[in-house]
Amino acid sequence: MVDGPVQLLERLVDARVTLLLKDARQLSGRLLGVDEHMNLVLDDTSETTPEVTRRLGRVVLRGSNIVTLHLPEASPPKPH
Amino acid sequence: MVDGPVQLLERLVDARVTLLLKDARQLSGRLLGVDEHMNLVLDDTSETTPEVTRRLGRVVLRGSNIVTLHLPEASPPKPH
Amino acid sequence: MVDGPVQLLERLVDARVTLLLKDARQLSGRLLGVDEHMNLVLDDTSETTPEVTRRLGRVVLRGSNIVTLHLPEASPPKPH
Amino acid sequence: MVDGPVQLLERLVDARVTLLLKDARQLSGRLLGVDEHMNLVLDDTSETTPEVTRRLGRVVLRGSNIVTLHLPEASPPKPH
Amino acid sequence: MVDGPVQLLERLVDARVTLLLKDARQLSGRLLGVDEHMNLVLDDTSETTPEVTRRLGRVVLRGSNIVTLHLPEASPPKPH
Amino acid sequence: MVDGPVQLLERLVDARVTLLLKDARQLSGRLLGVDEHMNLVLDDTSETTPEVTRRLGRVVLRGSNIVTLHLPEASPPKPH
Amino acid sequence: MVDGPVQLLERLVDARVTLLLKDARQLSGRLLGVDEHMNLVLDDTSETTPEVTRRLGRVVLRGSNIVTLHLPEASPPKPH
Repeated sequence: MVDGPVQLLERLVDARVTLLLKDARQLSGRLLGVDEHMNLVLDDTSETTPEVTRRLGRVVLRGSNIVTLHLPEASPPKPH
Repeated sequence: MVDGPVQLLERLVDARVTLLLKDARQLSGRLLGVDEHMNLVLDDTSETTPEVTRRLGRVVLRGSNIVTLHLPEASPPKPH
Repeated sequence: MVDGPVQLLERLVDARVTLLLKDARQLSGRLLGVDEHMNLVLDDTSETTPEVTRRLGRVVLRGSNIVTLHLPEASPPKPH
Repeated sequence: MVDGPVQLLERLVDARVTLLLKDARQLSGRLLGVDEHMNLVLDDTSETTPEVTRRLGRVVLRGSNIVTLHLPEASPPKPH
Repeated sequence: MVDGPVQLLERLVDARVTLLLKDARQLSGRLLGVDEHMNLVLDDTSETTPEVTRRLGRVVLRGSNIVTLHLPEASPPKPH
Repeated sequence: MVDGPVQLLERLVDARVTLLLKDARQLSGRLLGVDEHMNLVLDDTSETTPEVTRRLGRVVLRGSNIVTLHLPEASPPKPH
Repeated sequence: MVDGPVQLLERLVDARVTLLLKDARQLSGRLLGVDEHMNLVLDDTSETTPEVTRRLGRVVLRGSNIVTLHLPEASPPKPH
């Protein structure tokens, strides 16, 4: 019943997630894939700064740049 | 009787914990999951700064960003 | 149907990708090769700054310098 | 007769130790547990700065934040 | 037909390469050897800054300092 | 006849060594133990700055903080 | 005929080498030993800054602090 962090991410494929990166950028996108280093593939990605939102499309993100990943609180888990 | 740090965290699933991160942010939340890198899943997470408290909901936190994790001193351990 | 990040990159060999590096440089090039550390080989590489675009030719990029890699949204996947 | 660093720490469970962290904070506490990464569990932890001492209770500390750990010079080793 | 980054470097032994390092130094030299960490051996190495070019002779370079390595675009691959 | 760095340190147990750390602190002490990460146990440790010498007693030092370790030039090697 | 970086260093035991470190210090010494992390043992070591040369004697150097190691161009390789 209790997931580890990577297992939880694997169950969240297709959900939208928001990421805070070490360089203070904030990205949001639909989660397409994840590996054991928390490298992520995101789709429909947008980057938000206090001034502007920029559309980035499909993005591969190195897990080592992530500080926190914010999940939709009530995201229905997919059967796995 | 003596736990290693990760084993202790595994026993604290469902307890509230407070984290001090390398970027000086402070997060509090209910511990939902942990892995051997101290990557954490937190629920009902809030971020506290001297100025404001912000609710973040469910969060995955990369263990490499953690400096210290503060446990509730008298948290009753769950049978495992 | 769901790729991990490195598998997705392997399928994108020959596509053009854009990279944002930790030192804030931005590179674009055609992906020639990738390994499990996300070290990349790029061809026809150009570096873009707000002021100028510089042609770099063939480049090996250490994966540890990558923040995000932006894929062409609708790149046709190659049969593998 | 000669211990490695982690073995020495394992023998010091229940002793009070003082830690200097990379962010210049200084923590003191009773050692409850240690793993091979020098991740520590401390009890009755206090943080000392030139200005103030703050009580933190039970703390998990990531080993990667430690610079030096100061042992009580004459701490009686526990039989193991 | 598709090389990974390290395999490509192995095929480029004897070619001249240019390196951009994390400390912003730029080195050029003839590639003598490479390992799986991208540690390199260079011969006839020179360091170029905006002000001056300095000859360094034979150099071992730690791969972790490399940002990008620029290859001669049309270097004839050696049979392996 | 040729030692690797860690093997040399193992043979120097009981000798006094001086350490330069990444945070520019300088420590001297009698080497009590060492592991494969160059984590060290020192006894009778003192910290020297241009202004002052401070006695620290027994210290565990994380190897990742070490820049250089200075050995007594003519330290008689212990039979192993 | 082609050495990897560490193999080349192993063949250079007894030769004098010069090192540029990440903290911008420059060390020269006779190479006594090396391991797979490029941790080095140097003898007759001296540190050179623009202002002064300081004799350090025998030194263990953590490989992770090395940027580049400069070899004597025509050092006769030792039979191994």
